[in-house]
Amino acid sequence: MGRCSLLLLLLASLTPGAASPVSPSLRAPSSLPWSTSFGSRPTITPKYSIRYIQQKVDHFGFNIDRTFKQRYLIADNYWKEDGGSVLFYTGNEGDIIWFCNNTGFMWDIAEEMKAMLVFAEHRYYGESLPFGADSFSDSRHLNFLTTEQALADFAKLIKYLKRTIPGARNQPVIALGGSYGGMLAAWFRMKYPHLVVGALASSAPIWQFNDLVPCDVFMKIVTTDFSQSGPNCSESIRRSWDAINRLAKKGPGLRWLSEALHLCTPLTKLQDVQHLKDWIAETWVNLAMVDYPYESNFLQPLPAWPVKVVCQYFKYSNVPDTLLLRNIFQALNVYYNYSGQAKCLNVSETATSSLGVQGWSYQACTEMVMPTCSDGVDDMFEPHSWNMKEYSDDCFKQWGVRPRPSWIPTMYGGKNISSHTNIIFSNGELDPWSGGGVTKDITDTLLAIVIPNGAHHLDLRASNALDPVSVQLTRSLEVKYMKQWVTDFYVRLRKMN
Amino acid sequence: MGRCSLLLLLLASLTPGAASPVSPSLRAPSSLPWSTSFGSRPTITPKYSIRYIQQKVDHFGFNIDRTFKQRYLIADNYWKEDGGSVLFYTGNEGDIIWFCNNTGFMWDIAEEMKAMLVFAEHRYYGESLPFGADSFSDSRHLNFLTTEQALADFAKLIKYLKRTIPGARNQPVIALGGSYGGMLAAWFRMKYPHLVVGALASSAPIWQFNDLVPCDVFMKIVTTDFSQSGPNCSESIRRSWDAINRLAKKGPGLRWLSEALHLCTPLTKLQDVQHLKDWIAETWVNLAMVDYPYESNFLQPLPAWPVKVVCQYFKYSNVPDTLLLRNIFQALNVYYNYSGQAKCLNVSETATSSLGVQGWSYQACTEMVMPTCSDGVDDMFEPHSWNMKEYSDDCFKQWGVRPRPSWIPTMYGGKNISSHTNIIFSNGELDPWSGGGVTKDITDTLLAIVIPNGAHHLDLRASNALDPVSVQLTRSLEVKYMKQWVTDFYVRLRKMN
Repeated sequence: MGRCSLLLLLLASLTPGAASPVSPSLRAPSSLPWSTSFGSRPTITPKYSIRYIQQKVDHFGFNIDRTFKQRYLIADNYWKEDGGSVLFYTGNEGDIIWFCNNTGFMWDIAEEMKAMLVFAEHRYYGESLPFGADSFSDSRHLNFLTTEQALADFAKLIKYLKRTIPGARNQPVIALGGSYGGMLAAWFRMKYPHLVVGALASSAPIWQFNDLVPCDVFMKIVTTDFSQSGPNCSESIRRSWDAINRLAKKGPGLRWLSEALHLCTPLTKLQDVQHLKDWIAETWVNLAMVDYPYESNFLQPLPAWPVKVVCQYFKYSNVPDTLLLRNIFQALNVYYNYSGQAKCLNVSETATSSLGVQGWSYQACTEMVMPTCSDGVDDMFEPHSWNMKEYSDDCFKQWGVRPRPSWIPTMYGGKNISSHTNIIFSNGELDPWSGGGVTKDITDTLLAIVIPNGAHHLDLRASNALDPVSVQLTRSLEVKYMKQWVTDFYVRLRKMN
Repeated sequence: MGRCSLLLLLLASLTPGAASPVSPSLRAPSSLPWSTSFGSRPTITPKYSIRYIQQKVDHFGFNIDRTFKQRYLIADNYWKEDGGSVLFYTGNEGDIIWFCNNTGFMWDIAEEMKAMLVFAEHRYYGESLPFGADSFSDSRHLNFLTTEQALADFAKLIKYLKRTIPGARNQPVIALGGSYGGMLAAWFRMKYPHLVVGALASSAPIWQFNDLVPCDVFMKIVTTDFSQSGPNCSESIRRSWDAINRLAKKGPGLRWLSEALHLCTPLTKLQDVQHLKDWIAETWVNLAMVDYPYESNFLQPLPAWPVKVVCQYFKYSNVPDTLLLRNIFQALNVYYNYSGQAKCLNVSETATSSLGVQGWSYQACTEMVMPTCSDGVDDMFEPHSWNMKEYSDDCFKQWGVRPRPSWIPTMYGGKNISSHTNIIFSNGELDPWSGGGVTKDITDTLLAIVIPNGAHHLDLRASNALDPVSVQLTRSLEVKYMKQWVTDFYVRLRKMN
């Protein structure tokens, strides 16, 4: 995507090895205490055991027979052998403990589903590093970071659990995941239907590939979120880019901008301005994704409905450039300093040195090519076209590999997936990734649920007193379908015996 | 399998680099003229074009971006753009031209199906060598010889054909294959249902893995074929092993055996005797596979019902060892010298130096581990248990890799495949591989057809005046189902537009 490609390029040049294209589910600041992620709900420590399984580094070749330890979490507090189930979280691009603690839905329904909970860490993230500290050293070591290998890990883990846990053998397993993990959950059901009876794919943009959806849909949804959250909001942000350009061109402009935005590292050259704008744009994108109805701490500590809070600073139209930029600072401050502890704003903050960022950057440069673009007219961003050639060159520079943008649709079916069954695709209407998601039923068993007022995989989060009715209904429906899959499974089992 | 493992070991030690475990579909002697394979039918040269497509050597990793030329054949004589279809042969372990010429069924139904015929060569066979002459040099070069890579080649080829052939884009594709190629056809429908509307998997032993079926089922079926083809037939063969052992122990026994069996290379040591017995056993297995009702030339030029012809030499029970062995020679002569041209019998003949043999030996040592065993009581062979440890050690010695016997069931579902649709599993009742095949309907759309008096993928061969009614009915049924898939496809297409 024009923008992401640019981000990738810029961040790569500024902070080598830490490039970060927009990723559907974002990573936790490494210092984030898990318990805060339950928002305004009383903090409950989920009880799980941490376990490890030896996995082949390469499931699809025999020359390298090396194994590595994949981490997974398991909780059986509410599990029942009789009529129970296994809820299997298909881990995505980050530390599995963090995802576990941000997927309260599974904990909330464990008792009702008589379910064992399993959270499987995705290879190359968290502690599940195929080559330890060398895992990201070059394209040779990164070669086994693919969706196919990750799904094969999940398959082997499920077979292992069924073999080793007494009573688990004849139980139905359901895959659940959000964002990239939601894609994995859906794809897992498509490719390994013998191992999972169904999948809940929350906020899974399985169609944000190739030309399956227009590349501008993502930024349009971000823009709609902002324009619906306050008068003049998206217009002000659209105007801000030119205001920054104008200010930057003036003599003391860079210094003025650095001070007005309280940047930790002052801008010194014009390239820094592009980087600043990319960082600001990514902040708006992130805010749209985590526009939750209650105080939360997913990417940052944030107030309820953070986009509304941000938009309060953009009430008035046609304010002078300097005032607009001071308002931009106030808005950024909502995202980066809700706690009030930050002394300055760090424009490299989205590019943490966590492994997750490196892993996703590589994945975005290989299989997970998700084109986005903007035109500055139907969206509030600067115009950026999608330039595959440039994107590919950037990837080659950074990782020594070239993306294969048509591979994911070839492998997973693109829009032609109607022969599969038992997948729920849920999408928050506010979530920019819903543009690449399945938002209409495909068949009787490939179901779409759209959650008005829902942001990025809101349904997977713990239930909260401030939840809109829409997400409460969504969760009930999801449980209803999952129970049906479980019932169907046991009916078939009885027939076979 | 005990026997195959042994064969592998022995042949490997006798003729390095040319080991050959029993393979579900056997390879053609390289000198075989294709046209004779149509048996007693008048020779018709199918008209096809030979084409090539550039394929990634590694679809599942990005470090190696190398490509190779995959060969495929295409015939559009009877293809109709309006309401037509594409019949796609999922190539197996050999030269695609040879398979093309042995799959007369596709040519016979092309007009009725308004079908374009495509025959895709399997990587590492025929001319489709990822690293040219180096393809078999070591486990590093062989690393990309897997079923997953082969299926991905097929997927890319279908996408390419749909993109580049005007009129093919909105046509239904059906996968067809026999033996290992039948497994690939079934697995292709399971893994890429967005690319093929259904699959005809002929003589595809998809359950001859791990412990999905008893390991002795294969040899039992061979034995039944022989015992049903003449009085005392299987008993005589069962007795022959001990007769050979007794003769070999006598002073001039090896020379006598070498002369009685007209061996090209005389036996000189006791190990040669084990090799001789393995070679004879494999001959009986091959005969059971190609026990066709008419003169044919699939593995060798053979008379109609060759097992019956062989059994004529075993009419009498309790003949002396020397007479029994002279009869064994007569029986072997049916298989190896029907043409009357052979001056002597070559016990290394099943281990040709063709690429196909090497490729299959590697596949049998990695993914395609198909256990077989014999007990000498319920079958006519010497007892051989299945010893996975020994098998694995032999593989490691030969290829530097270790097999993963549980991988295929993990990947392709084992017996739990009921969520898939539109696959016909046809099995000849005489075919030893039918023991690992699907011989009972699984659902309304996962159908099994058993062909009485049918040998290995008889239904895929060209129609013949001597065909039993059973195979004629089978083919009609197959066409009926395939037409239904095509109709369903066009109904869906019209609904969508």
